[in-house]
Amino acid sequence: MTATAAGTASPALADLPLRPELVGEEPYGAPQLDVPVCLNVNENPYPPSPAVVAEIATAVAHAAGSMNRYPDRDALGLRGDLARYLGHGLGAEQVWAANGSNEVMTHVLQAFGGPGRTVLSFAPTYSMYPEYARNTHTAWVTAPRTADFRIDAAAAVAAIAEHAPDVVLVTSPNNPTGTAVDLATVRAICDAAPGVVVVDEAYVEFARSGTPSALELLPAYPRLAVSRTMSKAFAFAGGRLGYLAAAPAFVDALRVVRLPYHLSGVTQAVARVALAHAPEMLAAVDQLRVARDEVAGWLAGQGLAVAESDANFVLFGRFADRHAVWQALLDRGVLIRETGPAGWLRVSAGSPAEMDAFTTALAEVLATPAARRAPDPQGDPR
Amino acid sequence: MTATAAGTASPALADLPLRPELVGEEPYGAPQLDVPVCLNVNENPYPPSPAVVAEIATAVAHAAGSMNRYPDRDALGLRGDLARYLGHGLGAEQVWAANGSNEVMTHVLQAFGGPGRTVLSFAPTYSMYPEYARNTHTAWVTAPRTADFRIDAAAAVAAIAEHAPDVVLVTSPNNPTGTAVDLATVRAICDAAPGVVVVDEAYVEFARSGTPSALELLPAYPRLAVSRTMSKAFAFAGGRLGYLAAAPAFVDALRVVRLPYHLSGVTQAVARVALAHAPEMLAAVDQLRVARDEVAGWLAGQGLAVAESDANFVLFGRFADRHAVWQALLDRGVLIRETGPAGWLRVSAGSPAEMDAFTTALAEVLATPAARRAPDPQGDPR
Repeated sequence: MTATAAGTASPALADLPLRPELVGEEPYGAPQLDVPVCLNVNENPYPPSPAVVAEIATAVAHAAGSMNRYPDRDALGLRGDLARYLGHGLGAEQVWAANGSNEVMTHVLQAFGGPGRTVLSFAPTYSMYPEYARNTHTAWVTAPRTADFRIDAAAAVAAIAEHAPDVVLVTSPNNPTGTAVDLATVRAICDAAPGVVVVDEAYVEFARSGTPSALELLPAYPRLAVSRTMSKAFAFAGGRLGYLAAAPAFVDALRVVRLPYHLSGVTQAVARVALAHAPEMLAAVDQLRVARDEVAGWLAGQGLAVAESDANFVLFGRFADRHAVWQALLDRGVLIRETGPAGWLRVSAGSPAEMDAFTTALAEVLATPAARRAPDPQGDPR
Repeated sequence: MTATAAGTASPALADLPLRPELVGEEPYGAPQLDVPVCLNVNENPYPPSPAVVAEIATAVAHAAGSMNRYPDRDALGLRGDLARYLGHGLGAEQVWAANGSNEVMTHVLQAFGGPGRTVLSFAPTYSMYPEYARNTHTAWVTAPRTADFRIDAAAAVAAIAEHAPDVVLVTSPNNPTGTAVDLATVRAICDAAPGVVVVDEAYVEFARSGTPSALELLPAYPRLAVSRTMSKAFAFAGGRLGYLAAAPAFVDALRVVRLPYHLSGVTQAVARVALAHAPEMLAAVDQLRVARDEVAGWLAGQGLAVAESDANFVLFGRFADRHAVWQALLDRGVLIRETGPAGWLRVSAGSPAEMDAFTTALAEVLATPAARRAPDPQGDPR
């Protein structure tokens, strides 16, 4: 490179030899705005209790006393706690953990995807998946969900036959639609898949009672993994802890690609405190299910289309100009998410006060021209 | 995949569709053994003071009170603190931070390396670099250092002309040899490099006084980055915080490939406390320089070859069977690192008690047949 005189103008991004497929890409993420009511990223609105906060501080003080040393690279204590939380007879060697599901999924694609390999999912689905694929140079393909956002088992099997994917990602409950996938469909996908299958159960704790977890299928399918996160039901989004259950050999594959010491000693300590208080940390889940069902009912009562949700959010629409509705809500101090199929918006289940603020604001907006509805979809609604 | 009867044996790793280049690979890492004296991973032996620990606990309690919310995705407060620590007129937008230098370097290779691209470094050097390259599908090439582990500027320029690398990694001080690279050589590399150059200064705080940092060169070279870590001089290995300084556009490139919310709120809070106490956290650096120079002198006094070190470790040798020496030290409760060129071993600079334990144990081992010396190298010692 040519040296420039000190103090000359900085280069623009276009002046740097960025990989071609990244040129023009924006860093991913929902807007982080300072707004009174944040219902945009499916956070749990209830912070940990003062007692749990105090225990976290104590645990971190203990960990900080040896902060000069590297952490336990295999995080076996934490992984054992996660296994006990999951139940199903799982042990630490069947659980993997990383800095959020983002990193867990990246490890999966680094081990089983990559150049010349393909990952298949069912659209519309989580908007980070294509970024995991892009970052790992895995080809990203989707098959469509039904008009009501379910996965049709026969269509899924046909898509697997067509694409022969190395990795299949099944999101249940799905983000941003909230749709749970029944185990018969997961079984059909596992039976058809030539590679590995990951069921992303980030929101499963919010599913209606009686909804089974794909953890049940692990003993039958050696190439199946079930991913979870502490960000949602566990009210631990700020702690960044995602995890996955699978056969020990599957976990060993992820250990090969992980960066050493990827989980800090502090992260391990804080997550273990939260897990020790699982019943308390999860106590709000029932309230949030109620909030979800109430807001879904209210939205339907306004004549809006509402996707059936087993998660802590509701997708609703369809608006001719969803951005105008999103902006009108933001102007009223309520931040929701402009995501998912055209015309739809997603709102997280929050506290009663947050839901009141949302319905009050949306009722106002619905009375304005900004909220005109989209014409009936022609064919596929996505 | 075929369903197996529940309860049947788990798959072996060989039964899973792991990427071919990962088959047979072991997870990276130095052995984590429970040994009285650990001088194997270049940790700072001095933990934070009780006052700093207490402040960390307070900061984490504050962060934990909003643990249910996602952290500041851009970590601007932390990046500003890191910029102030670095000086040189840097601002937050010129600093990037991630969970250890491992993740920082991965971001660099995701943005500027990848399939069809090449990263060049100068061997022997840090053993994680080929793993970063492997994980990002970047071709890994090395040019040799001189017999005394320096980078010869003319040879470096010739290697750059030969390989046309997209990324050049210059480690100064180098791991595992301790060798600092002078700025004239860094300038020559920057002038020749067609892509980006990263100077990895993980150990720079331990350099002998008067050793300049490549931070000085940032204004002149828009494609240069300088990486640092809090794991070593900052005694913060358990906190996992690596960082990098470069032009704002270079940092923007890393923001495109980073996973959102990659740095937890707790990590940000704890690192900021450590940075606020930089003089105290760094107080041991002078002692560790003394320990390094003393042990280097002692080793030379035993008739061993000793690499000149500007880091907090010393490479010494050469043994006909270095593993036997490593094991004999371990048998005496002293864990050092079996790494670097054949015949050499690396020992970290520790506390006076740790260095006494090391020299006592090694003096014993040197009197045994296990410690027989390697014959004089024929040609290149690596």
